[in-house]
Amino acid sequence: MTANATPAALAKSQLTPTSTAEILVEALPYIQEFAGKSVVVKLGGAAIDPESDRALAQDVLLLRSVGVRCVLVHGGGPQVDAMLRRVGKQPEFRDGLRVTDAETLEIVRMVLVGKINRDLVATINGEAGAEPVALGVSGEDAGLLRVTQRDASLGFVGDVTEVRAQHLLKLLDGGMVPVVSTIGADENGQPFNVNADEAAKAIAIAMGAEKIVYLTAAPGLLEDAKDETSLVPRLTAPELRERIAHDSVGGGMIPKLTACLEAVEGGVPYAHIIDGRVPHALLIELLTRHGIGTMIRQEANW
Amino acid sequence: MTANATPAALAKSQLTPTSTAEILVEALPYIQEFAGKSVVVKLGGAAIDPESDRALAQDVLLLRSVGVRCVLVHGGGPQVDAMLRRVGKQPEFRDGLRVTDAETLEIVRMVLVGKINRDLVATINGEAGAEPVALGVSGEDAGLLRVTQRDASLGFVGDVTEVRAQHLLKLLDGGMVPVVSTIGADENGQPFNVNADEAAKAIAIAMGAEKIVYLTAAPGLLEDAKDETSLVPRLTAPELRERIAHDSVGGGMIPKLTACLEAVEGGVPYAHIIDGRVPHALLIELLTRHGIGTMIRQEANW
Amino acid sequence: MTANATPAALAKSQLTPTSTAEILVEALPYIQEFAGKSVVVKLGGAAIDPESDRALAQDVLLLRSVGVRCVLVHGGGPQVDAMLRRVGKQPEFRDGLRVTDAETLEIVRMVLVGKINRDLVATINGEAGAEPVALGVSGEDAGLLRVTQRDASLGFVGDVTEVRAQHLLKLLDGGMVPVVSTIGADENGQPFNVNADEAAKAIAIAMGAEKIVYLTAAPGLLEDAKDETSLVPRLTAPELRERIAHDSVGGGMIPKLTACLEAVEGGVPYAHIIDGRVPHALLIELLTRHGIGTMIRQEANW
Amino acid sequence: MTANATPAALAKSQLTPTSTAEILVEALPYIQEFAGKSVVVKLGGAAIDPESDRALAQDVLLLRSVGVRCVLVHGGGPQVDAMLRRVGKQPEFRDGLRVTDAETLEIVRMVLVGKINRDLVATINGEAGAEPVALGVSGEDAGLLRVTQRDASLGFVGDVTEVRAQHLLKLLDGGMVPVVSTIGADENGQPFNVNADEAAKAIAIAMGAEKIVYLTAAPGLLEDAKDETSLVPRLTAPELRERIAHDSVGGGMIPKLTACLEAVEGGVPYAHIIDGRVPHALLIELLTRHGIGTMIRQEANW
Amino acid sequence: MTANATPAALAKSQLTPTSTAEILVEALPYIQEFAGKSVVVKLGGAAIDPESDRALAQDVLLLRSVGVRCVLVHGGGPQVDAMLRRVGKQPEFRDGLRVTDAETLEIVRMVLVGKINRDLVATINGEAGAEPVALGVSGEDAGLLRVTQRDASLGFVGDVTEVRAQHLLKLLDGGMVPVVSTIGADENGQPFNVNADEAAKAIAIAMGAEKIVYLTAAPGLLEDAKDETSLVPRLTAPELRERIAHDSVGGGMIPKLTACLEAVEGGVPYAHIIDGRVPHALLIELLTRHGIGTMIRQEANW
Amino acid sequence: MTANATPAALAKSQLTPTSTAEILVEALPYIQEFAGKSVVVKLGGAAIDPESDRALAQDVLLLRSVGVRCVLVHGGGPQVDAMLRRVGKQPEFRDGLRVTDAETLEIVRMVLVGKINRDLVATINGEAGAEPVALGVSGEDAGLLRVTQRDASLGFVGDVTEVRAQHLLKLLDGGMVPVVSTIGADENGQPFNVNADEAAKAIAIAMGAEKIVYLTAAPGLLEDAKDETSLVPRLTAPELRERIAHDSVGGGMIPKLTACLEAVEGGVPYAHIIDGRVPHALLIELLTRHGIGTMIRQEANW
Repeated sequence: MTANATPAALAKSQLTPTSTAEILVEALPYIQEFAGKSVVVKLGGAAIDPESDRALAQDVLLLRSVGVRCVLVHGGGPQVDAMLRRVGKQPEFRDGLRVTDAETLEIVRMVLVGKINRDLVATINGEAGAEPVALGVSGEDAGLLRVTQRDASLGFVGDVTEVRAQHLLKLLDGGMVPVVSTIGADENGQPFNVNADEAAKAIAIAMGAEKIVYLTAAPGLLEDAKDETSLVPRLTAPELRERIAHDSVGGGMIPKLTACLEAVEGGVPYAHIIDGRVPHALLIELLTRHGIGTMIRQEANW
Repeated sequence: MTANATPAALAKSQLTPTSTAEILVEALPYIQEFAGKSVVVKLGGAAIDPESDRALAQDVLLLRSVGVRCVLVHGGGPQVDAMLRRVGKQPEFRDGLRVTDAETLEIVRMVLVGKINRDLVATINGEAGAEPVALGVSGEDAGLLRVTQRDASLGFVGDVTEVRAQHLLKLLDGGMVPVVSTIGADENGQPFNVNADEAAKAIAIAMGAEKIVYLTAAPGLLEDAKDETSLVPRLTAPELRERIAHDSVGGGMIPKLTACLEAVEGGVPYAHIIDGRVPHALLIELLTRHGIGTMIRQEANW
Repeated sequence: MTANATPAALAKSQLTPTSTAEILVEALPYIQEFAGKSVVVKLGGAAIDPESDRALAQDVLLLRSVGVRCVLVHGGGPQVDAMLRRVGKQPEFRDGLRVTDAETLEIVRMVLVGKINRDLVATINGEAGAEPVALGVSGEDAGLLRVTQRDASLGFVGDVTEVRAQHLLKLLDGGMVPVVSTIGADENGQPFNVNADEAAKAIAIAMGAEKIVYLTAAPGLLEDAKDETSLVPRLTAPELRERIAHDSVGGGMIPKLTACLEAVEGGVPYAHIIDGRVPHALLIELLTRHGIGTMIRQEANW
Repeated sequence: MTANATPAALAKSQLTPTSTAEILVEALPYIQEFAGKSVVVKLGGAAIDPESDRALAQDVLLLRSVGVRCVLVHGGGPQVDAMLRRVGKQPEFRDGLRVTDAETLEIVRMVLVGKINRDLVATINGEAGAEPVALGVSGEDAGLLRVTQRDASLGFVGDVTEVRAQHLLKLLDGGMVPVVSTIGADENGQPFNVNADEAAKAIAIAMGAEKIVYLTAAPGLLEDAKDETSLVPRLTAPELRERIAHDSVGGGMIPKLTACLEAVEGGVPYAHIIDGRVPHALLIELLTRHGIGTMIRQEANW
Repeated sequence: MTANATPAALAKSQLTPTSTAEILVEALPYIQEFAGKSVVVKLGGAAIDPESDRALAQDVLLLRSVGVRCVLVHGGGPQVDAMLRRVGKQPEFRDGLRVTDAETLEIVRMVLVGKINRDLVATINGEAGAEPVALGVSGEDAGLLRVTQRDASLGFVGDVTEVRAQHLLKLLDGGMVPVVSTIGADENGQPFNVNADEAAKAIAIAMGAEKIVYLTAAPGLLEDAKDETSLVPRLTAPELRERIAHDSVGGGMIPKLTACLEAVEGGVPYAHIIDGRVPHALLIELLTRHGIGTMIRQEANW
Repeated sequence: MTANATPAALAKSQLTPTSTAEILVEALPYIQEFAGKSVVVKLGGAAIDPESDRALAQDVLLLRSVGVRCVLVHGGGPQVDAMLRRVGKQPEFRDGLRVTDAETLEIVRMVLVGKINRDLVATINGEAGAEPVALGVSGEDAGLLRVTQRDASLGFVGDVTEVRAQHLLKLLDGGMVPVVSTIGADENGQPFNVNADEAAKAIAIAMGAEKIVYLTAAPGLLEDAKDETSLVPRLTAPELRERIAHDSVGGGMIPKLTACLEAVEGGVPYAHIIDGRVPHALLIELLTRHGIGTMIRQEANW
């Protein structure tokens, strides 16, 4: 313990064995609540970096060890932009959606499936040590994400029409931790880029997940987007619907909030937007009494 | 936090959410090591009281939730003595063994199966809440403990000749927590009183348990029985055998140490004697980095 | 065959091998009818004695061998009274129900779980020989009997609110013969004394049993309680309801008859009250053409 | 009960319900010994008639209901001879073996598979009533009996080279009672007539049967073939081998005794030759204390 | 390739390996459509001869290897007539139905079960070689076809009242190919002769078959029974119903067409009447793009 | 059929339905031989192009439909080189092995996992239509390929030390077609590039595959590398070992031949090198009588 240890680190170092055990025991009611249930966790591209990935990997492995079945779904916008530029291509967007020609699609797919997904799998398996349990899945695999083209002018951008969740469920039954890239395919095998927030929601509904958790680079939904202390801790679906209708939420959050709303209305009991920058945010949300981020439920039974 | 909070309680109250989560994460390697394995925990009658039972119940439920399969085996000498006196009968011992006539046997059985076992089951199920998972088993049930009479002069005192562990294994497969009273039976169904330390050892061997843990009213094996700080933290089986042979351990501990030795020599990788008076001693031993009590292994690969 | 052999014993001794085989064959249609089905058998404390227990054990083992799944449920009033007196406590009743303070509850639990249940298990396993299949279960185990307090003035007397029959069903699937003591528990693990007739009925309904059989110290329901030849061999549920309403049955039988009525109305096809004093009464009822006791069904399809 | 009732029938009619139940209970140790085990029963053509078939059907169904897995194997010499003559063909034998040309084979197959097997199945299913469990199997089905030609001069007479018992085992697992006709086939599907005594033995060995029982028209092996009271109740395999070598058994019995010897030496613990003319002979042998016929074991542990 | 090779044989001999592989690949969509589904194939007695049996055996084995679950159902009128005459009995018919006295029934059963069924099993197993998968089943086995007498004046002629398809389904699950003779039985085990066209239909409905295929000695349903080129390739159930009502089909076809109609109306998606004289007709219908025979469906979605 | 149809196409168009069916039937013995067995198919980067991929996809789907369990393993050297150049990096080799720094590794992984693997999955699923069964797996997933660094000077190039085939076996049990990219990982999750020929061999051995098939851009092993007609159709392992030792095979083939040799010596019964440029080469090898390429076995039992 060095002179400039944080108070928290100091506190941790002073715990007796019994106090340490008590902290474990305090997780028991949460474990009993979520054991055997599924949680879909969406990571935005911005939230992905080696250090927070490592903490997330630990969270996911701990959750797995207490019987929570986690599926990770990731995006990767910034990383795709970087790779496009590296091969001399300018990213292009229309109404916030990436215009995806065949060459762009190829790069998107390589970056999502061949890099970001891989790095997450590598991080989790590196933490898991002797028993590597993470594996990568793309929406193209075993028909996981069936899509149709959204709009010809956007190119290969697809909307999910069907989720074949059985492949994920089998992997979870086998103790695996699937990491999903959101490339979908149509009946001819043609791949399409799919928005990861939407794909995560569709997967959560199809799996009968207990929770969907969006890890973002903000504390949650804020009353005032500029004031990080103005967190809205909980909302019912009708309240959220109204806020979206009246534009009373910051624009950047709308797609994620809409996905939360649709998840809850599609039967997922809990949707959360939490701060992926807080180390172990996922574990804090699931296994401790500490509130974190914004929770959305159908009704106000908190 | 009141003015007279202990330093540990104070430390605990100052933990940040992330530090709390880190303590959970630090249990992960231990969980990975023991998940799916079986642990037999022996409680002496002296170690049984409502408060420590409650902590033990929490430990067992937490261990169960991370996949450790716990079997509790209990004794109950003091409680039997009390009941004998209550019905006007004087407890009688020869060479440390209870002389067990038919009437004594009836009382032993009532106290162990009908009181101590019941109280443990009630405590665990009270902690478990909506999903009660504890259940009582006697060595007479489904032939769990087959015995023969030790010595006619001792009356109904039996030695274990066979353990039918399959019944316990099935219960564990079904997510149950068996609590075992050590009354055995011979082929004619005649019950016998069995020493609980020995029964626990026989069960651990028959189940292929990973660990046997004896909860006692001492810190473990002490170099000097009067000095609680003279703990012997670890011993190999040959070292222990030598100490027992040379009487270099306190008499009271010999039966328990002999059971540990036979467990390890019978194939149980770890035997422990730990202090049942420390709250959450079982959890500390299994899921934290804190050393506690005395560990015995076949060889010195600590 | 001694000079004073009974005519029945004499008859039995004169059977040819073929006649003996024919008697076995005559059981076939009954076996075909009940194989794979469950039967709950309730023994009153008065009906329990070593000799008739032994015959009952044989009956249960034979039924098990032809695929009938038996669950025994026992009471034990007289034995509890005796033990209470032995520790210097006077049994106390109000409206036929035992006033159960904490100390009484402890004695009830010890006698039922730790003595009567044990003796039944021992007797069955003694008959079973090489493959002991009986095991004791208390309503506290694995949440079998969830109860609420009936009336504060009666102390720890509970009414069954939920039966978790799955534990019993698993034991039966594994070829076991469960012997059930009727101590229940609430959500906090607090034990309560439960009337065994009611508990047996609740278990039979929850298990989807084919039959519930009450073994009593009477030939069945009698038109005239003083005339053992005035047996009512069968009744429909409506007829029984009317008799109970008009008090046209002897008072002592009312709780048992009410339990029969509720069992049948709860979906158990057959309820029987038979004479536990007749050796092998259970087998006679189930596997022979001989009528015995009183049978209650929903409708008159005998 | 008419005036001229037999003493046995009279005895049966005088049994009390309890005595009847006791006779059932006396079968319990035999049931416990044989439950889950397989018994191959060979019926000779001579032993087949409607009345004894009906008693046999009852025996087999009762044995099935207590968990004994029965396979019936039948011959049919006299019936084949009758049908051959009916179509104008003279039965022909060489060294006791039927000379089997193509036309004879066709008749043998029709009579065994299409008549005798059928009649046995019909009788058992008629007794079984609502749950018909018997079904016919020929050695040709699913490769049950693989054979090679014995000797060209005998025509289509085959020796068993391989038994695919898995089909029978699956049927038994499904609760069925297979009735086997002993027509085998070679790799090209060509059918051959197989001696039923030999086929039964080969099936018993391949199935790992506990017993093989030959139902014959004699009380068993007799010291003096003309004196039905000169029964040899038991023999070890070496004793039997010696008797066969020294021709000290009647010629007619030799094939059956040889089959018994080979069965026992092939690992079947018990071989029996019993009197198929005694009603319920099979049940008497298996589930009562009455000795019947001749038993052969490897060693003298009776 | 001899000078007088047929053009088809010549064409086949000139295929390159790749063209051969392409023909296999062209079967893929049909395989994907039918894999895991059941097909009931009815063979008339007239369609049975060694050469076409061999081709049919190959078809059935190939279909089995691609996951199509085939059940063969056979008749045998001509063969029964021949045997009746051989034993000196004149076949007798009333309204096209065989008058079946006890002696006739015995012959019918012997010929169907003991000869035709056997020959089909032998042919399939001869083709199957190392892994014989065909086995014979009669409607009497395991209660497959429960029947009642149609009309006392016809003797032992039965109508199917219940099909216990589970036995067939288990055999198919185990990779077997059942060959069914259509002798049924009543509750007393009494056998009855059943029309094979009707039995096949009842089996197909009870199994939830995807198709029923009638192999006949005609190209299918003909507009003009004398003109083999006037084939009606497809019909809806209502169209067929009308044709039958208006007698606009040749009389001989009416029973088969009625069976097709009832199969389709009973839930079998496809019924076919195809030409059993064309080698490999079954395979052509199921796995190639070539149309063959007449197809009946509920509606006109061809 | 146009005027300039090839003779093979012409031949195909002239086949009768029966001849077409016969070609299917001729595949039956091959199907019977390989059903239920596993085949590992290695595609070199050079062998990958849309048209032959489509034919390969059809082959794999047809093989799957007849019960052959296929695993595809792919390389991708040319495609990696192209991508490296696209991002301005020069491919670098030492002794035929790619020098793989961190940046190169990232590109290798993106191209193999995110492009080539994806394209194969898309092609197979496009052919599969309604039931997409292909899915991508990387050696990093679930610890499939555990590796250690070969030589620090080569950078992230790994040798396989362990194959966790259970993940592949589960996928095959579920009817999936795994497509494997050969990136492995060490215990810390660090990825390494692995030679695909070697990886395929290691997978085949670990899976207990029946065959390993290398699809190459040559007809097989040639006596004279310049003469495509000098094919060596078969070799025993000792013969191949000698040829490799004496350098009597063309250098380019040596790694592949060594992999074949090690596969066969590791217990894979058949190794093949066949011409991936021939459409449907895989199907020709497996399901037709046409010989193709070079086959290696341990001994000369062809």
